[in-house]
Amino acid sequence: MLPPGFAADVEQIVGADFVKQDPASLEAYGTDARKLGHPADLVVLPAFTAEVAAIAETCNARRVPLVVRGGGTGYTGGAVPVHGGVVLSLERMNRILEIDEANLLAVVEPNVITGVLQAEVERRGLFYPPDPASLDESVIGGNVAECAGGPRAFKYGTTRRYVLGLEAVLPTGEVIRTGSKTVKHVVGYDLTQLLVGSEGTLAIITQVVLRLVPKPPVQATLRATFAGIEEAVGAVDELLGARVVPATLELIDQSCLEAVSAYLNASLAPPGTGALLLIEVDGFSEAVEEEVRRVTAACRAAGATEVLRAADDAERRELWRVRREVSPSLRMLAPTKFNHDLVVPRGRVPQLFGLVDRVRGQFGLRISCFGHAGDGNIHVNIMADPSNPDEIARVQAAERMLFEGVVALEGSLSGEHGIGFVKAPYLGIELSPEEIALMKRVKQAFDPNGILNPGKIFPEQA
Amino acid sequence: MLPPGFAADVEQIVGADFVKQDPASLEAYGTDARKLGHPADLVVLPAFTAEVAAIAETCNARRVPLVVRGGGTGYTGGAVPVHGGVVLSLERMNRILEIDEANLLAVVEPNVITGVLQAEVERRGLFYPPDPASLDESVIGGNVAECAGGPRAFKYGTTRRYVLGLEAVLPTGEVIRTGSKTVKHVVGYDLTQLLVGSEGTLAIITQVVLRLVPKPPVQATLRATFAGIEEAVGAVDELLGARVVPATLELIDQSCLEAVSAYLNASLAPPGTGALLLIEVDGFSEAVEEEVRRVTAACRAAGATEVLRAADDAERRELWRVRREVSPSLRMLAPTKFNHDLVVPRGRVPQLFGLVDRVRGQFGLRISCFGHAGDGNIHVNIMADPSNPDEIARVQAAERMLFEGVVALEGSLSGEHGIGFVKAPYLGIELSPEEIALMKRVKQAFDPNGILNPGKIFPEQA
Repeated sequence: MLPPGFAADVEQIVGADFVKQDPASLEAYGTDARKLGHPADLVVLPAFTAEVAAIAETCNARRVPLVVRGGGTGYTGGAVPVHGGVVLSLERMNRILEIDEANLLAVVEPNVITGVLQAEVERRGLFYPPDPASLDESVIGGNVAECAGGPRAFKYGTTRRYVLGLEAVLPTGEVIRTGSKTVKHVVGYDLTQLLVGSEGTLAIITQVVLRLVPKPPVQATLRATFAGIEEAVGAVDELLGARVVPATLELIDQSCLEAVSAYLNASLAPPGTGALLLIEVDGFSEAVEEEVRRVTAACRAAGATEVLRAADDAERRELWRVRREVSPSLRMLAPTKFNHDLVVPRGRVPQLFGLVDRVRGQFGLRISCFGHAGDGNIHVNIMADPSNPDEIARVQAAERMLFEGVVALEGSLSGEHGIGFVKAPYLGIELSPEEIALMKRVKQAFDPNGILNPGKIFPEQA
Repeated sequence: MLPPGFAADVEQIVGADFVKQDPASLEAYGTDARKLGHPADLVVLPAFTAEVAAIAETCNARRVPLVVRGGGTGYTGGAVPVHGGVVLSLERMNRILEIDEANLLAVVEPNVITGVLQAEVERRGLFYPPDPASLDESVIGGNVAECAGGPRAFKYGTTRRYVLGLEAVLPTGEVIRTGSKTVKHVVGYDLTQLLVGSEGTLAIITQVVLRLVPKPPVQATLRATFAGIEEAVGAVDELLGARVVPATLELIDQSCLEAVSAYLNASLAPPGTGALLLIEVDGFSEAVEEEVRRVTAACRAAGATEVLRAADDAERRELWRVRREVSPSLRMLAPTKFNHDLVVPRGRVPQLFGLVDRVRGQFGLRISCFGHAGDGNIHVNIMADPSNPDEIARVQAAERMLFEGVVALEGSLSGEHGIGFVKAPYLGIELSPEEIALMKRVKQAFDPNGILNPGKIFPEQA
């Protein structure tokens, strides 16, 4: 419930055309990619930082929850208004303001679609590496708020590495600028890096200064197949031992391969394949050839059953097809995919797969894994039917066992998706009470009245 | 003045052998590389995190200022106890705990000397890129606290990029762990990145998890000479246009070259040289050759008077000699070097040199510049005699003009050295009152009683 007169105050700020209160909108703006949401009480579409600031000030003064929405592609409910209130969608703030080739940077509004920015900078011979799977729909602001990763993070790092500066609105309405247009900057605390990955709980990002790099002139794509996960991970060890840093090192397990075969009614890998690596290297032509040689040798040394190299773009797309088909295939297995982005130190990926095997056996669940082998970041998908309460109870027990297991392996609950409200109850598995208390004091420093994206990251009091 | 019984309490924690109160120690532990200090009231040398925690708790309970000291090589007084109190030197916590080749990481205590760690990891074919000029004396903990940079930051990034996780002691005595051993990690706020560059004002770093990369197998060193700064910067433009990312792009101006010639009584560059670039590229052999070709072509296109390539390590050292001799040469010009690490967006380096020319003319000061052309991070050294009050007044006016000038160029007061107490009075030139107030609230979240490294970063109230 909004306070009396509140909607009119918000209409004063942005104009009545940009305030929505119809039930369909309140519902639609209250969900994310996980499809589990909570309706907003009001949706507002500001176009300028000053409007965002005025909305924040109004929400803060009236103690109305304020939740920022970018592309709405999150998996952990970061943009879901679990306590109701205002959803502030940044969809009208979607311009590329500047691509500065001389200084290798771009200045963008938050709702520029990541893939659109990539295409624009690549036309100029530049490169914005972060490539979350959602890049055709997700937006830079959301990528920054969640610290999006993707396959290329092994060589190029996650979104964090490319954010030089931000303009942001505090929940109390002040506009701040953090960082600068320079790569080196040590003036006061690094609020830029603190805001990256803060899941929209500290400030509303209204402008982003991104670092760009030169686009690698040449790229090569290889697919190596193995009898099992251990051999595939062994190839990653060999390859790092040969001091190669591939741009991409994607791992797909047998369960995913079986799902794809069933879905397409055709196998995309040779018979007997228990695991598959998609490997891309990039750089100058001569270096790429050298890396391809080393990658091929590493895969063969680890017992690869086949190593293929794409001769052209069509073949590249064909090699990647198995990866693209994983998600739709898994969706055929069960109505809901409980998609966990677990991460362990790279060398412990075999132990993570061992853990998944134990969980699978103990709870009788269908679990399929794929992910970023170079980062130790594996997407562990538990396929289940939410209309089956017994199965859901087993999913929840399995999740807890997985989370405790990765922390015991010195890994982490989340490498890419963040905590949102979905993983908030489990935060204490990874962080100590002192660490959580400190983070809450940091939250308080930004948001004294707790109006911005309440119910996220931290476990709610019972 | 310490509270009664305080020294005895501290001796209880670490043993009397590791507490110093003699005047020579209080003086020595109260200065840094700038040689302007303030004596400590007590120096303590803990060996374990638990001891550090107990010292913090005691200082916090008695409201005694606590200042952490690493290598003591800072330029802005970050380790200077300007309000007296305890200096906690981490010199006994100097072990490399782990170099994990499989996971490409190292775990170290804070006082491992940066150069020592580099040598250890390079023996294993790995690489820790950050290379502050002080690397033979400065330590990882200090590098993390200041977010140290160095010549290789253009290609490899600053210290920030390599810090995966920390163990730290809060000023109130709690021990926290931040980050993890994984490259991707999005669980709660990124306190790791917040602590990097926080200049010892938020927490005491007691352990560091560092990311390593494969050591580039081949390196090439080139020296290009130019008639002036504009031509040299033009070469950097050309080179980036050719999509080369050198590891190192060091620029030395005419004033530095003249100082070196006077000091050595011999010129290290051809007659007529107004600016010099030292360029290093690294990677696989074939790629290095391609980059050398592109760098050479770029320098020639920009009007280089000479481009030399080192044939071996001895020649490499000879080409770098001019850079190494700059600091000792400048010290001959005047007793004090006011060394400012200004930074502007890379393409605005010519405007920064224009600003320096105007300042030089207006205040009649000797100013010599060198630095990291790829980062836009230029060390602007004002040479002056502190016994001449008129000259010092001109230095101060010149500093303000420089700081205001770089901010107008969308640059920053500090790219490498931090704010400490030396630049604290100027913080408001770059940050707004709202931004400073927010940072102070963050400080409060970590250090409610303001005991940790007081008098740093923020301007002190009059």
